[in-house]
Amino acid sequence: MDETCVNVKRLEENEEQCTDEDKTDQDKTEEKLISSNERSWKPWQQSRSRIRECVLYVKKVLVSFASMEWYCYALLGIITALMSFFMDMTVAKLLNAHQWLYRCLKGHHLLQFLCWTLYPACLCALSTSFAHSICPFSAGSGVPEARAILLGMDMPDYLSLSNLFAKLFGLICTLASGSTVFLGKVGPFVHLSIMVGAFMNRLHVSCHGGKQRAAKGEMLVVASAVGVASCFGAPVSGVLFSIEVMGTHYSVRDYCPCFFAAACGAITFRLLSVCSRDQETIQALFKTSFSSDLPYQPFEIFIFALLGLFCSILSCIYLFCHRWALRFVKTNKPISRLLATEKSLYSAIVAFLLACFTFYHSAGHFIAAELTMKQLLTSLLDGTSWYSVSHNASALPEPQKTFWQAWNPPGKSYFQTLGFFITAKVGLLVVACTLPLPAGYFMPVFVYGAAVGRLVGEGSAYLLSDGISSAKSLINPGGYALAGAAAFSGAVTHTLSPALLALEMTGQCSHAVPALVATLVSNAVARAKHRPSFYDGISLIKQLPHLPSLIRACPKLASVQIKQFVTPAGVVLERTETLASLKHILNDSADNEFPVVDSHYSPILLGTINKSQLRERLHQHRNELVHFTLCVCFFSGVSLYNACLCVFCQAHCIMSATGEQRLFITESGRLCGVITWKEMKKIIEEMAKEV
Amino acid sequence: MDETCVNVKRLEENEEQCTDEDKTDQDKTEEKLISSNERSWKPWQQSRSRIRECVLYVKKVLVSFASMEWYCYALLGIITALMSFFMDMTVAKLLNAHQWLYRCLKGHHLLQFLCWTLYPACLCALSTSFAHSICPFSAGSGVPEARAILLGMDMPDYLSLSNLFAKLFGLICTLASGSTVFLGKVGPFVHLSIMVGAFMNRLHVSCHGGKQRAAKGEMLVVASAVGVASCFGAPVSGVLFSIEVMGTHYSVRDYCPCFFAAACGAITFRLLSVCSRDQETIQALFKTSFSSDLPYQPFEIFIFALLGLFCSILSCIYLFCHRWALRFVKTNKPISRLLATEKSLYSAIVAFLLACFTFYHSAGHFIAAELTMKQLLTSLLDGTSWYSVSHNASALPEPQKTFWQAWNPPGKSYFQTLGFFITAKVGLLVVACTLPLPAGYFMPVFVYGAAVGRLVGEGSAYLLSDGISSAKSLINPGGYALAGAAAFSGAVTHTLSPALLALEMTGQCSHAVPALVATLVSNAVARAKHRPSFYDGISLIKQLPHLPSLIRACPKLASVQIKQFVTPAGVVLERTETLASLKHILNDSADNEFPVVDSHYSPILLGTINKSQLRERLHQHRNELVHFTLCVCFFSGVSLYNACLCVFCQAHCIMSATGEQRLFITESGRLCGVITWKEMKKIIEEMAKEV
Repeated sequence: MDETCVNVKRLEENEEQCTDEDKTDQDKTEEKLISSNERSWKPWQQSRSRIRECVLYVKKVLVSFASMEWYCYALLGIITALMSFFMDMTVAKLLNAHQWLYRCLKGHHLLQFLCWTLYPACLCALSTSFAHSICPFSAGSGVPEARAILLGMDMPDYLSLSNLFAKLFGLICTLASGSTVFLGKVGPFVHLSIMVGAFMNRLHVSCHGGKQRAAKGEMLVVASAVGVASCFGAPVSGVLFSIEVMGTHYSVRDYCPCFFAAACGAITFRLLSVCSRDQETIQALFKTSFSSDLPYQPFEIFIFALLGLFCSILSCIYLFCHRWALRFVKTNKPISRLLATEKSLYSAIVAFLLACFTFYHSAGHFIAAELTMKQLLTSLLDGTSWYSVSHNASALPEPQKTFWQAWNPPGKSYFQTLGFFITAKVGLLVVACTLPLPAGYFMPVFVYGAAVGRLVGEGSAYLLSDGISSAKSLINPGGYALAGAAAFSGAVTHTLSPALLALEMTGQCSHAVPALVATLVSNAVARAKHRPSFYDGISLIKQLPHLPSLIRACPKLASVQIKQFVTPAGVVLERTETLASLKHILNDSADNEFPVVDSHYSPILLGTINKSQLRERLHQHRNELVHFTLCVCFFSGVSLYNACLCVFCQAHCIMSATGEQRLFITESGRLCGVITWKEMKKIIEEMAKEV
Repeated sequence: MDETCVNVKRLEENEEQCTDEDKTDQDKTEEKLISSNERSWKPWQQSRSRIRECVLYVKKVLVSFASMEWYCYALLGIITALMSFFMDMTVAKLLNAHQWLYRCLKGHHLLQFLCWTLYPACLCALSTSFAHSICPFSAGSGVPEARAILLGMDMPDYLSLSNLFAKLFGLICTLASGSTVFLGKVGPFVHLSIMVGAFMNRLHVSCHGGKQRAAKGEMLVVASAVGVASCFGAPVSGVLFSIEVMGTHYSVRDYCPCFFAAACGAITFRLLSVCSRDQETIQALFKTSFSSDLPYQPFEIFIFALLGLFCSILSCIYLFCHRWALRFVKTNKPISRLLATEKSLYSAIVAFLLACFTFYHSAGHFIAAELTMKQLLTSLLDGTSWYSVSHNASALPEPQKTFWQAWNPPGKSYFQTLGFFITAKVGLLVVACTLPLPAGYFMPVFVYGAAVGRLVGEGSAYLLSDGISSAKSLINPGGYALAGAAAFSGAVTHTLSPALLALEMTGQCSHAVPALVATLVSNAVARAKHRPSFYDGISLIKQLPHLPSLIRACPKLASVQIKQFVTPAGVVLERTETLASLKHILNDSADNEFPVVDSHYSPILLGTINKSQLRERLHQHRNELVHFTLCVCFFSGVSLYNACLCVFCQAHCIMSATGEQRLFITESGRLCGVITWKEMKKIIEEMAKEV
């Protein structure tokens, strides 16, 4: 049935094309309407009408090249990229300010401590209070909500303009609090992009009118691709993300728009950094320079597979801790009370505690806490092995030297730092995830995976320090960091696109196979036994109406029968209804459509008839006898459903995909009752509460 | 409705998981069956039973890790990669032999001419005669047929074992005839992979039994990804290809299997070349070494976009010539008569003529005809500009020197050679495409695109030879060749995956944006105005039952009403049918399912009842009066269809996606007639003949 819907869409497309020919007439009527609406008392009549004419002319010219949708896609990509770039710039300035202040206070331990802890605490408090005062729905990543929205759930609060501003400002504050809080921007950016997509859709609809539903879904799918693409300048992984986030099906019709919009977003994002003189040309965000002659030995693929396994085990631990922490925060009375009333205070306290831990003179110097997230990732992805660096560390050029010193604090080796980083960051990350502010959880996981990969890589480099095989080539731990980042983030989110994202972010095509192998292995283990993904976990805790994650958490739900949720069908017409009762029903009932059955005694559903049709029939037969047969029945394949075969999630899918507002449930042809979309949503919400 | 089907599949998946628990019981019964089948007269009873036990044990162990499907996917990838590798090896040996012979005959122009022309002529004749004597369906690319098969058409001839061998052997001969015939292997490899996938599916079904249809589609989609992946060692573009080839919808359930199988195929393919000491480690097939510091200047993106535009215009010319040639061959009487009876002769003559043209002393030295396709691509993708090389050509290392000499024959500049190559190859390619032998048409197009890109790149490098902007960096024509290859092949096939394929083949992530921009621009122009793609053209000429390409060629077909194809529904039961007539119908009718209508006078379709149900009901009511009411009606949402809304391609999609064998067409609830899948196929075939 998959294809059906798509081809139905295609038909609509064809219809669109037919109507395109009538466009010139439409334009004329538009112009007429505008001119008739003009009132004499409005100022600058002539100039306004001239501007209007210009706009209409521009529109006509644009439409002659491509349909309006494509301009919307391009605009969507460009707007998201602009947001992404200016956010990055602001955050970088704020981080620099913090670091400058911290450096100025060198020697004054107490002042440094205050600077280190209060800055993120204040920013987190600000982010939380701002986000919650403007739009309480702006907290969190937004990806779980986006998944529910893409599956057809109406969640207007998550697509509002206030949410957009709250998320944007809150996210800047969160990111500016730096590697202390250790949160990213991908998830919120997907959400932001989807919000922009929803606005674009409204713009498009206001240009054309009608056809809202189908177009909306398409625009939102495109927006999800744009979100990832313009966050990292990685168009292909954006498209793959949009395929994965759909969960069950992907219309190939969306494929080209996704690519186009993602490319627009990625190019704009990278061009902006060229314009701002950050980079000389369009390059990967975290460009690495691995030796390309012999990136890795063939036998290293086994180590990469083992790394994938290791990452998947760590991801299971992380996910378990994360779910436990979310539940703890929800059930623990003092904390939940604090969260209910004083969210900002909670954020400030948590950020302060995190900052205390990451302060250089407490545990900070064991976990390279002074590096920002970008610096962390760059240092971990560095192509030269630290084992070889350790022999002549003093000769290193500037950025590498800082990184080396951060990972090699006095008295500790880089193995100890990496090990401590990996152990401590799980806890810190889990705590940071409970913060009720707009934040992404992908990037921290990505950096964490890079650290795991680096540890494995450095270990291999140390063990095989004499060079491997006859070629005496050395192991490149940067490649392991890349594969580890892909594998760990893939395992946490149950996706494969991080493998490509890692390649696009670093510009290292040579490590495609290792990244893919590690990600496939880690995904295979992480997905086994219906374990929920990171987003599934949040969906469940937040009780979002996202059926696939509910089913993953509780596989029994997949076989729940629809019968128990069926409600009586309200007014049901008999085929041989009397004229009087029909008139009575027409006047009294609020329903717009009535099921028609054979007889009340044997209610075989014959079809449905709507109010206007019924009125027409009554008008036609007004001179006839007291009763007549309602012989014209309007079947629609979807509204009939055989209850013997039907389980709940099937019905949900039919309704969410077709936009049908109610479904008649029959059993052996007899009408059992009806189920409406409203109830459906209620049921899912209740299920989410129960699971 | 998209999701519906997918979720129905999911349900099946869940059911599968439930039945997995019963597996141990199943295994036991299997063992019992085997032991009961053992006959005393068969030799080595004990050892055979021991082997059998071992096999069952291994199966049990394997299944405990992952379901059997995943092993099938892995095996599919590995087998295809093995085929690909050994084919490449054989072809390389045959090509070397030819080149050795040609070199040996240096000085003897006539002998060299005979060697140059007869070798490919004989090989083409052999390929044609072998392919046609074993399986006449093995000729051509196979991608158009694969598309039809993936859309649910049954074409058993295209999936047979004889076709596999004919295609494999024929393809080796075709490829061994070298750059004279200038054909590739991608298309046939996708076809071969799909054949292997069909066998894997049979294997899987024989292991489990049942659930054939759903699994088959999945395996074939995976196989299409594997085909591309194991041809070039490019897994991600394989997956993207599988999305694009589906045309209308893509089930996200296939996404992970596609990635997994493609990765298996790609890794095996690359590992084999490591094992055979072709390469030291897993690397890109056509590894380039562009300067990574400044791959291109931002303003060059506009040149890349222009390149895309240029490629799309050339692709339109090429496609027009291609369709014209195919039609000419079909309609021209002498040629069509020759093709009908003496296919091998035709192939030999065409190959001979092509070889005459490409002989060094005729036009060969203007089009670098001495280079093989791999060498052509390597030389075009070379990172150093020929403008800079021209100043010190004598100092070049060995392979580059040969390439340089091939593109710079005495008395001609490389611009002239490239220009002549681009002009002449369109004609040569179009002629080669008419050869009735197994061959791929993607790789030639890819190389051609690279030449176009190189020309543009060399032109830019020449014009901007003083370096661009203050950086005095030089333009890299290799990057243009890469983008041109992606753009041209993308425009010809109407796909975007070539952009990623070009990156994966060269390992140049730095040129992701240029390749994507050029491909998007070329696709936008090439797809405008419903122009058919290369594969669409072949589908139309070959009259394949592939509805999307028919609709693209003739958009009117999208709105053809189903009503005109409806046939009477055969035996139709009334609700109040008499017992006698029911018995009569049961005995006489060959149908297995009967529609039940309200009355013959007002045939409102109530549902369907099948023979066994009818028999049961008759048995229950055997003691009743002469007639009774068939009150149990079995509705199935799909078999009812409202003719007012229904156009032909919608009905086709419903049937091909759900596997429904017939569809009852109703109008305002009244049964109009029926349409069967058989007829549907016939109608499409007729449509294909008419278009």
